[in-house]
Amino acid sequence: MSDHPITKFAIPEIIFGHGSIRYLAQCARRLGANRALLVTDQGLIGSGWAGHVMDILRDESLDYLLFDKVNSNPRDYQVHEGADLYVREKADVIIALGGGSPMDTAKGIGTIAGNGGRIRDYEGANKVMRPLPPMIFIPSNAGSGSDISQFCIITDVERQVKMSIISRSLVPNVSIIDPTLLMTKNDNLVVSSAIDALAHAIESFVSPLASPFTEIQALKAIELIARNLQPAIHNRTPEIMEQLSIASTAAGMSFSNAGLGIGHALAHSLGGIFDTLHGLVHPIVLPVVMRYNLPVCPEKMCVIGRIIQGSAQGCSKDQGEEGIAKLEELFAVLNVPHRMRDIVPDDSKLEKICKMAVHDACMLTNPRKADWEDLLAICREAW
Amino acid sequence: MSDHPITKFAIPEIIFGHGSIRYLAQCARRLGANRALLVTDQGLIGSGWAGHVMDILRDESLDYLLFDKVNSNPRDYQVHEGADLYVREKADVIIALGGGSPMDTAKGIGTIAGNGGRIRDYEGANKVMRPLPPMIFIPSNAGSGSDISQFCIITDVERQVKMSIISRSLVPNVSIIDPTLLMTKNDNLVVSSAIDALAHAIESFVSPLASPFTEIQALKAIELIARNLQPAIHNRTPEIMEQLSIASTAAGMSFSNAGLGIGHALAHSLGGIFDTLHGLVHPIVLPVVMRYNLPVCPEKMCVIGRIIQGSAQGCSKDQGEEGIAKLEELFAVLNVPHRMRDIVPDDSKLEKICKMAVHDACMLTNPRKADWEDLLAICREAW
Repeated sequence: MSDHPITKFAIPEIIFGHGSIRYLAQCARRLGANRALLVTDQGLIGSGWAGHVMDILRDESLDYLLFDKVNSNPRDYQVHEGADLYVREKADVIIALGGGSPMDTAKGIGTIAGNGGRIRDYEGANKVMRPLPPMIFIPSNAGSGSDISQFCIITDVERQVKMSIISRSLVPNVSIIDPTLLMTKNDNLVVSSAIDALAHAIESFVSPLASPFTEIQALKAIELIARNLQPAIHNRTPEIMEQLSIASTAAGMSFSNAGLGIGHALAHSLGGIFDTLHGLVHPIVLPVVMRYNLPVCPEKMCVIGRIIQGSAQGCSKDQGEEGIAKLEELFAVLNVPHRMRDIVPDDSKLEKICKMAVHDACMLTNPRKADWEDLLAICREAW
Repeated sequence: MSDHPITKFAIPEIIFGHGSIRYLAQCARRLGANRALLVTDQGLIGSGWAGHVMDILRDESLDYLLFDKVNSNPRDYQVHEGADLYVREKADVIIALGGGSPMDTAKGIGTIAGNGGRIRDYEGANKVMRPLPPMIFIPSNAGSGSDISQFCIITDVERQVKMSIISRSLVPNVSIIDPTLLMTKNDNLVVSSAIDALAHAIESFVSPLASPFTEIQALKAIELIARNLQPAIHNRTPEIMEQLSIASTAAGMSFSNAGLGIGHALAHSLGGIFDTLHGLVHPIVLPVVMRYNLPVCPEKMCVIGRIIQGSAQGCSKDQGEEGIAKLEELFAVLNVPHRMRDIVPDDSKLEKICKMAVHDACMLTNPRKADWEDLLAICREAW
């Protein structure tokens, strides 16, 4: 009957712009907050932003608790420690400040506070059945999209698995996106976050669950990142940071509702086994995965290629491949690792990584089917 | 510091696609429903869709009450009658099925049920302070965007005023958009709804409150309507109805968050004084209002013109005006009234209409300032 089956699209309320962080206490009050749990990490405390948030809460006489025991690749036991604090101290709203790690930890805390049990009980899609406490997220990078998305990635320490927990309930109530927070980040973080967002956009654009509502967001994100990634390094202006924030938000709207693919499945496995920083993986694997997917979605890859090349013209047959090559050129001049051997200690565990990655929830929305041996071939090509 | 000041973007959860109506009872249960108030009108009862919705609720053993005393240009007393029923019968969720009239009536009912008082107390922006009951909307036309928006338009019978009530709280929890509902509508309704959506997109695109999040939606809507309006008359396929539904939804996302302009201010006044059908106004006033606004936003009008003309190329100086002319050509072949004299009984009340329209909330987001005499000149040009 139609090209597009029934599709769902859900995003949080968004407050966007330089200075928007000042609406935090007002938002929290509207959600019924009397005592907030602020989830953040040492980086945000060091940069002064956590202090700024606490000042805002104090100025509005809003009681709060601080939870800052959050790593990159956040751990299951950190989630439970935070949830114990939330319940014991009778907090009634969760505020997350930071990158993907504090935001995903906050989602985990909310999941346990609202649903009980252990965080590993909720691994997979749509296992979170009861509502979470009200959540307000303030992203400090333009990449993870966790402030927009239904995704929460937590490491199960015992199994060395980065679990994907995906549920409508994990979308926060409000995302306060203030690009001023990006102004003090170092180049590497800005670049790796932007490439993470680019991977979100590209993987979700070719997902079988993509809809007109997600596609428009994915293409906007690709366009903005292709245009602003290099300028962001040389000339860190508020305008460019704003453009990258819009891109990350748009990419979040897309992948949250359409899903991801092989690149993220591999990134999760690498993070689980080697504690690899998520943002380092995508400049290495994204072009290889795009080439793997190209044969099954040439038209969509052509649209991506056209945008990356900045061409307004219709698609030529080779534009998909040309776009991938252009992306590799773009990455080549960036000060990031370019080969998998630069970030993986040795190749003896690649097989284990790939056998784990095929079970990642992101594999379900990759356009081209792949078994663990296909993933191994991708890793070898990226080695 | 930035081209874009702090901006807010809020939309409901969307379930979209042919057949999506079957998720209604499941959604209502998720929102805690035990007894739903179904707000609809005689047209939807006559077409059988209201019966279909009641079957779905019955099949899921969900108790419901029917409220169908809804006119086009819905009245304040209808809102209060529905709210009395909701409260008296202890309903706990509101389901609206229909075009803008049943949906706006449902918003009014929810406002009174959640906040008390009289509906006129909430006229203007951000006067609704307390939450509404959970609401699920099923639009039966692709135009009003009420299922997406923060807007609710109710006629104050005593004052003959169509009040604009605008609040974040008026966004329903879920919008179930099933393009199959459009398949049985007559051509006139499809056309006038699509042009209403086009006016939403164009007015909000040039609004001073437009943001990158709303602009992307407005342009998508303009593109889809320009491409599908005429085909929809000659060849009513499920695909074309789906495209118009996407367009109306995208236009709703845009105007809900960026606001409207002179065209809607005039349409509200005409509706309040002459009970004029909303959809009839826009083919008549939209091009005239665009010409009025052209001098203050030539770049944006050029982008609109390019899309309407289906041109991929950059903007020439005259493209704004050419786009408006093309739009007039497009409207000229449609079987709709083309001059204001065709829908307004006599011109002696134009002054009253314009003096009322300048106080409409939509005037705040028109890009070019206008007093009542400017509006009168617009009406005379459209006469």
